Amino acid sequence: MTGRIADLSEALAAIVGLQGLRTAEALASRDPGFHPLNLSAKLAALPRSTAEVAAVVALCRRHSVPIVPQGGRTGLAGGAASDPHSLILMTDRLDRIVEIDPLARIAVVEAGVTLARLEDAAAMHGLSAGIDLAARGSATIGGLIATNAGGMEAFRNGSMRSRLLGLEAVLPDGEVLDDMTRVPKCNEGYDVKQLFCGAEGTLGIVTRAVLRLSPADGSGTTLLAACRDAAAALDGFRRIEASPALALLRGEIMWRPYAAAVAEADGLARVLGFAEAPVYALYEVTPRDPAADPAEALIDVLAAPMQTGGILDAVVAASERERDEIWRVREDSFVIDRFLPHALWYDISVPLAGLDAYVAETARALAALDHALRFYVFGHLGDGNLHITIGDGQPADPGRAKAVDRIVYRGLKAAGGSISAEHGIGIDKRASLRDHTDPQKLRLMALIKRALDPKGLMNPGKML
Amino acid sequence: MTGRIADLSEALAAIVGLQGLRTAEALASRDPGFHPLNLSAKLAALPRSTAEVAAVVALCRRHSVPIVPQGGRTGLAGGAASDPHSLILMTDRLDRIVEIDPLARIAVVEAGVTLARLEDAAAMHGLSAGIDLAARGSATIGGLIATNAGGMEAFRNGSMRSRLLGLEAVLPDGEVLDDMTRVPKCNEGYDVKQLFCGAEGTLGIVTRAVLRLSPADGSGTTLLAACRDAAAALDGFRRIEASPALALLRGEIMWRPYAAAVAEADGLARVLGFAEAPVYALYEVTPRDPAADPAEALIDVLAAPMQTGGILDAVVAASERERDEIWRVREDSFVIDRFLPHALWYDISVPLAGLDAYVAETARALAALDHALRFYVFGHLGDGNLHITIGDGQPADPGRAKAVDRIVYRGLKAAGGSISAEHGIGIDKRASLRDHTDPQKLRLMALIKRALDPKGLMNPGKML
Repeated sequence: MTGRIADLSEALAAIVGLQGLRTAEALASRDPGFHPLNLSAKLAALPRSTAEVAAVVALCRRHSVPIVPQGGRTGLAGGAASDPHSLILMTDRLDRIVEIDPLARIAVVEAGVTLARLEDAAAMHGLSAGIDLAARGSATIGGLIATNAGGMEAFRNGSMRSRLLGLEAVLPDGEVLDDMTRVPKCNEGYDVKQLFCGAEGTLGIVTRAVLRLSPADGSGTTLLAACRDAAAALDGFRRIEASPALALLRGEIMWRPYAAAVAEADGLARVLGFAEAPVYALYEVTPRDPAADPAEALIDVLAAPMQTGGILDAVVAASERERDEIWRVREDSFVIDRFLPHALWYDISVPLAGLDAYVAETARALAALDHALRFYVFGHLGDGNLHITIGDGQPADPGRAKAVDRIVYRGLKAAGGSISAEHGIGIDKRASLRDHTDPQKLRLMALIKRALDPKGLMNPGKML
Repeated sequence: MTGRIADLSEALAAIVGLQGLRTAEALASRDPGFHPLNLSAKLAALPRSTAEVAAVVALCRRHSVPIVPQGGRTGLAGGAASDPHSLILMTDRLDRIVEIDPLARIAVVEAGVTLARLEDAAAMHGLSAGIDLAARGSATIGGLIATNAGGMEAFRNGSMRSRLLGLEAVLPDGEVLDDMTRVPKCNEGYDVKQLFCGAEGTLGIVTRAVLRLSPADGSGTTLLAACRDAAAALDGFRRIEASPALALLRGEIMWRPYAAAVAEADGLARVLGFAEAPVYALYEVTPRDPAADPAEALIDVLAAPMQTGGILDAVVAASERERDEIWRVREDSFVIDRFLPHALWYDISVPLAGLDAYVAETARALAALDHALRFYVFGHLGDGNLHITIGDGQPADPGRAKAVDRIVYRGLKAAGGSISAEHGIGIDKRASLRDHTDPQKLRLMALIKRALDPKGLMNPGKML
């Protein structure tokens, strides 16, 4: 098989040019991104146009060579992992922002444009992509679509699926799906582009998209609230949402063990110094009337829960530095890997009414399994989307990992939650998907995969 | 074939009970709803549970009997039309509102619940389904999902797809897809429920759903603005959207020929008496601060376009009666059928920057085709979703209809618009779909249909 890929080099060079090929040596010298196996293939092609992508896919199909599409390689579930038998198709050179239409509030972009670049281009028109996540500088639009990315603004703008108006994709047989719709209402048969959103490249390669833009947010004021529990944090969230004076831009939640450990590791213990509490909520707001004082409005809105003790105390970031410090405690979750290596990471959705019970019961069950396990939780409050890290600093054997999986996932699907909220399945969660997903849904997925990609060449080994 | 259906009666009665069957006579005595062929089948089954739906579907599959699912029969494209060879499956008795969860802001409902009933139930908790359309009293949740309904609130809440968190559906082989997710973030493999949203019952029968709810809107203040053109109407729309004092609940547009003809037919000519203009915009707002005066804020916000002449004049509805009269002019579009029978009806999306040019060019081309043709346009301003009626009062022969189609659809897809914005395809727009849709999209639709419904028994003759 590897010989076969090497044989393709010449034909690939004829399509993408020598500048559009990366050999094994070139790949080995490059940062693989989040997953260590991302750059394990021996060859990568970097097409410059949809036509080139289509020609590469058709060539690989003729030679039965699997293709692994890659954008920013920031995915957290191994969806871009490759092996020596595959060709990597990188979207780096599909990097054109084709158009920003400020009247219709849409962007037409190629797949390799990073979220940060799109955001900058939209900002010139007072607009925003309406989606934000920590990997904004590297994550590409193609990858965000292929994984139906969520992030911190999803509670008010929806996930990537809600931002997606039109799509162009190269199908497994090298044909091009051209559905570059630019309007929000279009009921013209099965909305097949929805399948590509979240398919992690297993049904084809996203090459271009039309995205909805939203008015850019005003500058945010950040408040950190020490809360009695998650219910109180959610109550504050709802009060701000309902306030006529404020727009809620973000609402995040951190349980104390997470916040304290990350703050300590980053030398930011002072951030939590104002109050010790089981849960911290991070609200970012902007006043609807630009002349108004958001801090004053926040105090008004949260006066009632502060009186009843739902919110124990709160601080408003008084400077850009204070704001950055609060956000670092929330966003620098990967620092956990430094003081708790080999941990298990999860990304789940819990129905909002069950947040406190879920965390309490999970903590109890983990302690019963092994008192040495540490349990860190933070997440996106409005979505009930929790990011969880569990470990004791030692590599977990498969039995232990399975036992922790069972505890974390217990009852989630039955309650209407999710075992994979926003990071997707990739290779890391395939077994969990099989264990927890409705069998009829799995059957439909297999039917669709077989119908569209009968040779199984698109990002094989992922998701299904 | 018809004999075969008659033979099924006994087996069907064993599933749904005699109370759950409707014979040809019973169907003939019933209002067929919007499409005259809706009740042309000789038998209908009304199951009371998902298990009964599954048993009916499995029975029909064994006997190769096609099934036409029906909700409120308010669809405008013939998606519920039936024939004597088919069994109608009515969702009337799947009418339970299973749960309203005010904290998570979700509703769990069966497919036969009408939008109005869900709205009433949600209102008890200060919530709303976040979708509204004129057929609210009859249209069912199952039908709204199967057609991905749009309506007047889609510009801010999205279409039905955006409201859909979880879905249960009976598949063509009688198996049950159970994806009753209750959280907004869930990336667990291909999101197959998206296929059922907008498939018009051709892939299976929606039986239950989890829907997102939103805070109920405050009471609305309605303003009717006489505008220089659609661009000015859109400018007013954007100004209200951006106003810190107001929330824009609805924004509709009517070109004068439509507004004048409907007002006249309904004896409401006085509604337009305040100003003669090429275009009327209808804005409904609520003040963010309940104590504020919305009329005053509207005057503030629209002062600039009134000074520059974009908005020629405007009236605020001063009473419930005045509000109703304005809305009747907008909503009573079917009155056109009284004074202009046999007309051709369209439902398209036009990119916002092109509204004025589109209407002007279409009017010109229609006049060139035949000066006797009347051309009425109204729509949902924020979406660029136009509803169009064209005719001369005489039945249009196929050649004439085709010529008008060509004019209405000309350039729409190339510009990123849509030939079917929110009403879907049904039987009425199948030919147009074939003519205007990307061939690869059509191919994928056929692949998916064949994979899921190889016998072609689910709502045959629709869409594909």
